[in-house]
Amino acid sequence: MPLPVSPLAPEKQPELPPIAGCRCGAIAAGLRYKGRNDLTMLAFAPGTTVAGVQTTSTTAGAPVVWNAKRLPGGTARAVIVNAGNANVFNGERGERDVAATAAAVAEALGCAAEEVLVASTGVIGEPMPIDRLCAAVPELVAHVRDDGWPEVAAGIMTTDTFEKRATARVAIGGVEVTINGVAKGSGMIAPNMATMLSYVVTDARLPATVLRDLLGPIADRTFNCVTVDSDMSTSDMCLLFATGMGPAHRAVERADDPALAGFAAALEDVLRDLAIQIARDGEGAQKLITIDVTGAEDGRAARTVALAIGNSPLVKTAIAGEDANWGRIVMAIGKSGERAERNRLRVRVGGVTIAEDGSRRPDYREADLGDHMKGRDIRIEVDLGLGEGRARVWTCDLTHGYIDINADYRS
Amino acid sequence: MPLPVSPLAPEKQPELPPIAGCRCGAIAAGLRYKGRNDLTMLAFAPGTTVAGVQTTSTTAGAPVVWNAKRLPGGTARAVIVNAGNANVFNGERGERDVAATAAAVAEALGCAAEEVLVASTGVIGEPMPIDRLCAAVPELVAHVRDDGWPEVAAGIMTTDTFEKRATARVAIGGVEVTINGVAKGSGMIAPNMATMLSYVVTDARLPATVLRDLLGPIADRTFNCVTVDSDMSTSDMCLLFATGMGPAHRAVERADDPALAGFAAALEDVLRDLAIQIARDGEGAQKLITIDVTGAEDGRAARTVALAIGNSPLVKTAIAGEDANWGRIVMAIGKSGERAERNRLRVRVGGVTIAEDGSRRPDYREADLGDHMKGRDIRIEVDLGLGEGRARVWTCDLTHGYIDINADYRS
Repeated sequence: MPLPVSPLAPEKQPELPPIAGCRCGAIAAGLRYKGRNDLTMLAFAPGTTVAGVQTTSTTAGAPVVWNAKRLPGGTARAVIVNAGNANVFNGERGERDVAATAAAVAEALGCAAEEVLVASTGVIGEPMPIDRLCAAVPELVAHVRDDGWPEVAAGIMTTDTFEKRATARVAIGGVEVTINGVAKGSGMIAPNMATMLSYVVTDARLPATVLRDLLGPIADRTFNCVTVDSDMSTSDMCLLFATGMGPAHRAVERADDPALAGFAAALEDVLRDLAIQIARDGEGAQKLITIDVTGAEDGRAARTVALAIGNSPLVKTAIAGEDANWGRIVMAIGKSGERAERNRLRVRVGGVTIAEDGSRRPDYREADLGDHMKGRDIRIEVDLGLGEGRARVWTCDLTHGYIDINADYRS
Repeated sequence: MPLPVSPLAPEKQPELPPIAGCRCGAIAAGLRYKGRNDLTMLAFAPGTTVAGVQTTSTTAGAPVVWNAKRLPGGTARAVIVNAGNANVFNGERGERDVAATAAAVAEALGCAAEEVLVASTGVIGEPMPIDRLCAAVPELVAHVRDDGWPEVAAGIMTTDTFEKRATARVAIGGVEVTINGVAKGSGMIAPNMATMLSYVVTDARLPATVLRDLLGPIADRTFNCVTVDSDMSTSDMCLLFATGMGPAHRAVERADDPALAGFAAALEDVLRDLAIQIARDGEGAQKLITIDVTGAEDGRAARTVALAIGNSPLVKTAIAGEDANWGRIVMAIGKSGERAERNRLRVRVGGVTIAEDGSRRPDYREADLGDHMKGRDIRIEVDLGLGEGRARVWTCDLTHGYIDINADYRS
């Protein structure tokens, strides 16, 4: 039974334009789901560069292990993604299945298996229906095309209730290039490298070293600042591809080349947009929560405090109950392990200062926040009053819907 | 509206016998709750020794700060506990209110304010109704008596649905002494020093240094191994008092005195019993979950892995759904940050080995676990296959009841 679409879904989704050098699409291979596409591919022109960030889980899935060996090469001809089965904890067989998948794609595309990246998302510990998957590959390779992007966004979903797409046009040295991005993820979402699946493709011509230097810090400020339930997945990855097949722009060799400033900003916009969409599709989410922490000793401390708030079940259930329970925010700050001083703390919700100078403001009235708490978009601001460190984290409330989905997902 | 009693409540609660040198009881001071006792005291004979472990929160409540200054003295004449208001984040006023409370008790008892410990549990950030509290102290001091223990267990409750009591009789050098313990706690429960309120009293004669050396490691293996929701409270404490007024036993100067081995074991039994009762009364709990991790590199690593499992919303919702979703256990192991190797891991649920040698056992059938998962008492065993470290953690499932209680507690 399909889940109802999150009430936080964006009203409009952008159309993703074709990217020169990238053909893509999805088919129904019957791997797990009935009546929907579950096998997705992006195929790239020769010379396409790639960088990626993946989960730091010590029980990462076989595809993550495969990709970790391929990404240092910096080039890729395809990524294939199956939805419904994570291929995690399947022993040696899991590794053989990944190699077989890559080999099947390589044969159909006419490239080396080492140039094929693999991703899987879904249930852990179920052997892959590998024969069916490999048998479907030739059809998928024949199916991919320039305008297949809507199928990509849909084909990688599991418990997602809406597609997550973003696109940008930006100039490098006066020449416009395009960035397309898709993502999936709505549970088992906690920051530590990517926290979901995301594929971002540009037609710019950029060396893999530049992609790597761009992607790491941007992923840290975007995907790694989203949390739904504090549970880090075994399968997370964000891969960034550059086909180099767009309009010719002047060569860029370093991520800090001033000609790339606009591109870096646009790339961060795309990733941030996708990251927030993941929080908006958090399992059971009824409210998007944006947490800004300022005044921390440094950026890392700010992020730790913001995540302590964003991962607190008590903060998230209070917001589900439309209760501006700032005491639970204070509790979460206190448990983060980062330095905090009661008399320097300031807590604001919905733009209203509730507590400062070590206690609740005498003029604060809960009624002032009634409308804000009833809304879809909850803002929490904490200033620690200690330094210049700041971070922003996105999450969602913890509702009966999360319990419904997760007490029941596998069956 | 009172919450229904947890289905995991013990069938029988022990009667707590009088402890020589300890008078106790509770009264209804009308501080927050209507029609129930909310102000509790234990008063001790002169010479009573004390040790305590308290929350490590950096936003700890004013009572925790007060006690931290008094505990090094090693003696106490009373502890007073109010339920309903945590006296946290109330600025300088919070500190003045604690001092006023201690002074009121000291005056009524005829001791020094520095010999009075204070505890508060309830809502954060609300100023204490201090005048009403201090006005009630003389009545409370007049009210405490040898057989007031049932009132103590009940008077400190907030969202608890049953009283938590434990008692033991044990010999020191052939002379029998008594240990009584009570605890409260059902939400904002995560291990890091005590994680709740607990008061344990013995009539043995033990120096404060011995109490300290006993309490720290025992609390680490008991209260600090319980988690309900990963949220560490601002108000947690476990205080251990020894009145020395029981039958005379031979003097003990060190915690590792062989004469104390039985006492230490009995004390650990009492604290473990109370700790498990807290997990049994976890907000919304329908199932008690016991997690054993063995084969870790050391005990600390084992505890970290066990807590990663016990705090995982996905593991806890799966169990609420009676789903032996061992893949989520593998996920939680992977996110713990501790060393794990897929091919050495073994995962057992309800005594059934599900996964080993890097994958699911071929002969495993989910149906084998149906009865276990439908029961109240869920057992998870993980062997990491790396070393000798082991830990046991207790938690409960994550249900609609948790959301109901916490989206609604304050209002």
